[in-house]
Amino acid sequence: MNLQILKQQVLEANLELPQHKLVTFTWGNVSAIDRTNNLVAIKPSGVEYDGMTVEDIVVLDLVSGRIVEGTKKPSSDTATHLALYRAFEDIGGIVHTHSRHATIWSQAGQDLPAWGTTHADYFYGTIPCTRLMTRQEIVNDYEHNTGQVIIETFRTRDISPTDIPGVLINAHGPFAWGKDAATAVHNAVVLEEIAYMGIFSRQLTPGINPMQQELLDKHFLRKHGKNAYYGQ
Amino acid sequence: MNLQILKQQVLEANLELPQHKLVTFTWGNVSAIDRTNNLVAIKPSGVEYDGMTVEDIVVLDLVSGRIVEGTKKPSSDTATHLALYRAFEDIGGIVHTHSRHATIWSQAGQDLPAWGTTHADYFYGTIPCTRLMTRQEIVNDYEHNTGQVIIETFRTRDISPTDIPGVLINAHGPFAWGKDAATAVHNAVVLEEIAYMGIFSRQLTPGINPMQQELLDKHFLRKHGKNAYYGQ
Amino acid sequence: MNLQILKQQVLEANLELPQHKLVTFTWGNVSAIDRTNNLVAIKPSGVEYDGMTVEDIVVLDLVSGRIVEGTKKPSSDTATHLALYRAFEDIGGIVHTHSRHATIWSQAGQDLPAWGTTHADYFYGTIPCTRLMTRQEIVNDYEHNTGQVIIETFRTRDISPTDIPGVLINAHGPFAWGKDAATAVHNAVVLEEIAYMGIFSRQLTPGINPMQQELLDKHFLRKHGKNAYYGQ
Amino acid sequence: MNLQILKQQVLEANLELPQHKLVTFTWGNVSAIDRTNNLVAIKPSGVEYDGMTVEDIVVLDLVSGRIVEGTKKPSSDTATHLALYRAFEDIGGIVHTHSRHATIWSQAGQDLPAWGTTHADYFYGTIPCTRLMTRQEIVNDYEHNTGQVIIETFRTRDISPTDIPGVLINAHGPFAWGKDAATAVHNAVVLEEIAYMGIFSRQLTPGINPMQQELLDKHFLRKHGKNAYYGQ
Repeated sequence: MNLQILKQQVLEANLELPQHKLVTFTWGNVSAIDRTNNLVAIKPSGVEYDGMTVEDIVVLDLVSGRIVEGTKKPSSDTATHLALYRAFEDIGGIVHTHSRHATIWSQAGQDLPAWGTTHADYFYGTIPCTRLMTRQEIVNDYEHNTGQVIIETFRTRDISPTDIPGVLINAHGPFAWGKDAATAVHNAVVLEEIAYMGIFSRQLTPGINPMQQELLDKHFLRKHGKNAYYGQ
Repeated sequence: MNLQILKQQVLEANLELPQHKLVTFTWGNVSAIDRTNNLVAIKPSGVEYDGMTVEDIVVLDLVSGRIVEGTKKPSSDTATHLALYRAFEDIGGIVHTHSRHATIWSQAGQDLPAWGTTHADYFYGTIPCTRLMTRQEIVNDYEHNTGQVIIETFRTRDISPTDIPGVLINAHGPFAWGKDAATAVHNAVVLEEIAYMGIFSRQLTPGINPMQQELLDKHFLRKHGKNAYYGQ
Repeated sequence: MNLQILKQQVLEANLELPQHKLVTFTWGNVSAIDRTNNLVAIKPSGVEYDGMTVEDIVVLDLVSGRIVEGTKKPSSDTATHLALYRAFEDIGGIVHTHSRHATIWSQAGQDLPAWGTTHADYFYGTIPCTRLMTRQEIVNDYEHNTGQVIIETFRTRDISPTDIPGVLINAHGPFAWGKDAATAVHNAVVLEEIAYMGIFSRQLTPGINPMQQELLDKHFLRKHGKNAYYGQ
Repeated sequence: MNLQILKQQVLEANLELPQHKLVTFTWGNVSAIDRTNNLVAIKPSGVEYDGMTVEDIVVLDLVSGRIVEGTKKPSSDTATHLALYRAFEDIGGIVHTHSRHATIWSQAGQDLPAWGTTHADYFYGTIPCTRLMTRQEIVNDYEHNTGQVIIETFRTRDISPTDIPGVLINAHGPFAWGKDAATAVHNAVVLEEIAYMGIFSRQLTPGINPMQQELLDKHFLRKHGKNAYYGQ
């Protein structure tokens, strides 16, 4: 992929975050990867969305983590993005936000179960919340270790990052991903929506059960995979 | 009715969904029926509201379910709409959304009782939540069976679809209807509003009783039926 | 007061309702009174705010309740407004809405206690919720009796309508009032705001006590009465 | 600092309050101080944000509390601002609002613990709620004493106003501050955000623990102090 197109996609996906009300101030970042050249484009650190241009986007080498284009410092969460791209080889875009309701689940330290078809249309089961990080993981190489804890969560719980394109970082907030930057943002919007609905679904029915497996299958698979029949 | 007018009404009613903040992305669909010719006009599947035109609207024959006009695939929920039009002969428009608070009641698997005059002005009693669907109903002809479960709910509980122009699908979201597409959307807005208020009314007064029958009568009947005196 | 000015004030106050997000569709109405001539101007029934003009405003005689100007039917809640103007002689404007959070308290059938200075700045104590109406009161002359129940609430509980410019109608929604139409709307906005905050204040501290009387005095009296020192 | 610049900053910071939806009507005020000349610029009392100009901003002498510039009455909360500037010598701007969710914590009379990194990025620990004021403190010199109670809270609980740039006034609402007017407003926005998230984090996990100290350290210190590495 042309690097200029990748940067443009990353810029546009970042600008969608305030439009979908997923971020306050600069609290969010989107990246995308060119798998052919192992190049990752990401938002600069602490820069306002208003007035951000394609020149502000920073490009890094996936393997070395070194900046190969751009004059700004990349997002402080860059090491988390890189860790995820290295481990989850099928994803093409990643987004991190502190969107209100997904962050509430993160702060509460709880998984978000699948309680309805809105969830099932995009996430094929429970969205996990990571374990607390150790002192060591926090003090040294924190952002990289944030990625490692996500990866560990998916591996030890045998969750496919394609089936569940998002996670809740304990005491922090959500990451979401997808085949490209736009899809990652799309999934972040859905995560925020179902996080909101989950809070009050459980309020109304405290012992609420996860939805039926066959309904989860039906909805996820009518939108995803080879038998999908949703859309044009 | 002129088919072009029906399609225009369906287009406009669909475009009202994002205006009333009832939908995220493409998660909603409105249809309307021409009862003389048994033709149903409905939103295409997975098409953005932004830029949707009257040409995108798909027209189907009520009896055969076949497309008679339009080049796009109709909404994936079309079979649900058709089932409802066949069973509820007085309705002229149907809307399905995943609006946040009605969906919360759906996910919680609970009926929404009439707790105030806002509810009574439009819904003449409890808005039912459907039972869980069986594995068989989900696996085969799911969207059609979604309609059948709605119809069963109204029949077995002896509810008139004219008195209660909406329903909560268990683990899914709301459908609403009315004499035409615009009224269906109007009722969907009301349903969302009372769903929101119901969550917190019950929070404040956990054992809250349904409103008095005579107050329910008064409000519903001052807006509906031959003795209505609301409006011009 | 010039009748044209009164009608203009009522029009503008009605148009403020959607601006402050106090109403959905046509669910609200504002009136004002010319005490010299005992004339009440009020919103027409079931008319959209969009496109409403001063000609739509209906004028009634306070004593007879007869329409003296305007071609439209007045708000279906007119009899409630008239009852309040007759009983509460110091008020000049009245507003009724189904604003979400005040309506939640109404549906919950609970008084809204004074829990903070936002409340104390405008309402000098608990905002009462009316008792349930009797079958007789609902069936015959319902809107008039709605007013009577409000008046009874203030009289039996010895509440001054000047000190507490609003009420929660059980299973219905709020009324607010003030020296004129604009002040009535202002108080309705405050009522909605404190109703929202009250729900979650009580969630955080379930046995929450009313605020200290001296703090209530301080805030109400720095804005109201002869020793007020707030504003220019 | 040029006084005209200070007034302009105060004007702009005040106008940001409605933009960030922190205020209803005129319920908020921002001030800033020129430490060299001990001059404080502050919003006038009860003036609408719409149409406010730099000429409306009032300037007072920190020591005497006398007005040195401006024709309007200063904010009724001026004495609170002055008390804080005198006691907290490192702060340059102060904001007071009745923003909904911070006010809810105030009304509930509870501290807001640090439950996530959004909090930790700006507030280095629990945000305290002040004790109830005595009758004496309320009756005489109320606004000054409001400041004194804030100062007492920080001193007796050994909290640094630089580490925790905000407070919840019991039964009232929040104050926030920072190195200048704009930073104070920024911190008020964050406080509102974490107050919202805190309500529902605790709802999901009632016995929720404060976040780990090392995670609090990591996030606060990557944005604040000499080892900060966030931003450009």
